[in-house]
Amino acid sequence: MKILLTNDDGINSEGIYSLYGQAKKLGDVTIVAPDAEQSAVGHAITLSQPLRVKEIMRNRHFYGYAVNGTPADCVKLGVRAILKSKPDIIVSGINLGPNLGTDVIYSGTVSAATEGTILGIPSFAISLVTYKNPDYEYAASFARRLIRLIARQGLPQDTLLNVNVPAVPKDKIKGVKITHQSKSRFIEVFDKRKDPRERTYYWLTGEMSRMEGDGEADDVAVKENYISITPIHFDMTDYGYLGELKKWLTLL
Amino acid sequence: MKILLTNDDGINSEGIYSLYGQAKKLGDVTIVAPDAEQSAVGHAITLSQPLRVKEIMRNRHFYGYAVNGTPADCVKLGVRAILKSKPDIIVSGINLGPNLGTDVIYSGTVSAATEGTILGIPSFAISLVTYKNPDYEYAASFARRLIRLIARQGLPQDTLLNVNVPAVPKDKIKGVKITHQSKSRFIEVFDKRKDPRERTYYWLTGEMSRMEGDGEADDVAVKENYISITPIHFDMTDYGYLGELKKWLTLL
Repeated sequence: MKILLTNDDGINSEGIYSLYGQAKKLGDVTIVAPDAEQSAVGHAITLSQPLRVKEIMRNRHFYGYAVNGTPADCVKLGVRAILKSKPDIIVSGINLGPNLGTDVIYSGTVSAATEGTILGIPSFAISLVTYKNPDYEYAASFARRLIRLIARQGLPQDTLLNVNVPAVPKDKIKGVKITHQSKSRFIEVFDKRKDPRERTYYWLTGEMSRMEGDGEADDVAVKENYISITPIHFDMTDYGYLGELKKWLTLL
Repeated sequence: MKILLTNDDGINSEGIYSLYGQAKKLGDVTIVAPDAEQSAVGHAITLSQPLRVKEIMRNRHFYGYAVNGTPADCVKLGVRAILKSKPDIIVSGINLGPNLGTDVIYSGTVSAATEGTILGIPSFAISLVTYKNPDYEYAASFARRLIRLIARQGLPQDTLLNVNVPAVPKDKIKGVKITHQSKSRFIEVFDKRKDPRERTYYWLTGEMSRMEGDGEADDVAVKENYISITPIHFDMTDYGYLGELKKWLTLL
């Protein structure tokens, strides 16, 4: 099995290294990842500057390819220019921090898996729900099981999986839930400051606002110590509103 | 009516200037737009550097606020830090070039309108389907009519509109079609080159691959000289696949 790994925390992050260790047990693994952290880049691609690829060593062996671009760039370049043949599966992660609720649209981790799906390759994103003292071991072994299952079961042509693993000891994890994206979102506050030259600047800050969600919402599942798997697609048409909107045609 | 305008081509683009001219006929208009072109940034937000705001003059009058960030940053900063009160509507555009099919996920123009919707403000994105010799006049007057209609009709809480206007003379436009996002997509090719120091670099290039679409697909409508309006939402859950995926639970 040929496995392509990427992420948005950058090639030097420990999350992708843990994933690499587990994925290697299943087949031939190639890493193509950003040379620096690319969090919150959403589905950005790089059009205005050329992309460069650098071969990275780790523990005295070739480890992977670092790209001066976004996660979506890495997947495009990996599949179209670096790999000799199409990978069987693409895994993006393990991300340091959750990718849940409305925030999924900002996620570089998820966008890499989306890009893989667009390219016709079964893909998933995997995130560990913590920002500090991450222990990726359990999430990485779960990723390995999921890779094996997807290799056997396949995925629909336009669907990827968004996986979030609670950061609790293995024996506290209650199981897996198939979930939908919740409406929870980040409520931003801008921290207004003056620089040493008395010019104003702003830092984006804020906090998550948890919306009331049913037990099938991704963030609720994770809070209850379930691994959350959400099937995601990239046709964003609001089909439920098409009929209503057609009534506007006489008004325009 | 308070109208917030933004785009991804940057504050100095002619597309937003045309929109400004028409929007001013309806109310109080504020421009908060990127200080430079931000095409294909998707739904990126800026977390790793501070945002700065610059007041821009045009024709000797105050014109708008330029931000060193992405379209989504501009909307967040505009609503949360620059405007004294929430705008009634947000319009993103007029983009130079289409935002159709799968490529919508890369669109900074659409992401700005998505951000507006997340903030609870009715929003739409508008694009002119050409890359050269744009004449924004008709698209801008259509935007004005749409602003007025949305002010009257409202939009569902989680839905924005993605509008694409064919770049043909006004009398060639056949009308408006309510559409869905097509599966058409960009097929990328990397142009591999050597720099003067003999180091390899890649330019992302390629061409659109049009998929067979019905007459209700966004790209088909535009090709047939209709203005395309697609309702978009940002819950990307593939609800149709949830049931099937639940069968995996016994296998994991």
